[in-house]
Amino acid sequence: MPHRAAQAGFRWDGVEMRPYKEDERALYRTITRQVLFADPEMHGELRYFEVAPGGFSTLERHQHMHGVLILRGSGHCLVGDVVTSLATNDLVTVPPMAWHQFRATKGEPLGFLCMVNAERDKPQLPTPEDVERLRKNPAIAAFLSNAPK
Amino acid sequence: MPHRAAQAGFRWDGVEMRPYKEDERALYRTITRQVLFADPEMHGELRYFEVAPGGFSTLERHQHMHGVLILRGSGHCLVGDVVTSLATNDLVTVPPMAWHQFRATKGEPLGFLCMVNAERDKPQLPTPEDVERLRKNPAIAAFLSNAPK
Repeated sequence: MPHRAAQAGFRWDGVEMRPYKEDERALYRTITRQVLFADPEMHGELRYFEVAPGGFSTLERHQHMHGVLILRGSGHCLVGDVVTSLATNDLVTVPPMAWHQFRATKGEPLGFLCMVNAERDKPQLPTPEDVERLRKNPAIAAFLSNAPK
Repeated sequence: MPHRAAQAGFRWDGVEMRPYKEDERALYRTITRQVLFADPEMHGELRYFEVAPGGFSTLERHQHMHGVLILRGSGHCLVGDVVTSLATNDLVTVPPMAWHQFRATKGEPLGFLCMVNAERDKPQLPTPEDVERLRKNPAIAAFLSNAPK
């Protein structure tokens, strides 16, 4: 299907929306995924994630990189040990093995495009020790409590 | 630079804008390119193209595919032998070896993201015979004259 029209509310014709189930360890919350481009001839994939107000993506790291463009709303992200506020159309590069998470912290949905390699390693989740170490940084602790400065 | 803020007018911090020179054979007109993501670790690249009102991208084909998301404005595209009207956030897949062109036909700029393989073949330009054959389709002839129905 060469042309897939945008529908209201950041949906697309013929694109399935996959709501993530809530993770019992609260590693992510109220985030959906739509795969916009994935084809055997393409070496990259483009996905659209949308985080509801107060929600967040999985806190994780992996060898493959993310190229992110904020398509809707605003929020905050953690990349490595830096917390950044995000506005629509901002770009975020997630380098290899950097802990990262996206949060809708402004009382509005945060929607973003994410380009990844089609062939990629599985994400690693933080151990309790990893989270403890991250939380020693006050800005990261506030971010993880959904109360970024 | 993990975070690059969006500036006004669909520009980004630290991203060079490359205006295309006018092509003497009028294969494209008033289009600019900004490379948003390109990294040796990434197998895809994400670029932002913006076509000024009345402008158009190169009419070309190649083996590699395009994954396109309309980020700004509206217009029309030709993919293969189909002319489609485009609205913001629409998706367009350009299959291998399909002739394609994007046009800002609505008196406003047309801006789109385009994902491609980092390693890709060079575009092929149409011969006069190719253009003549395309123009035999009235919808394509109107499109190429910037007067889509």
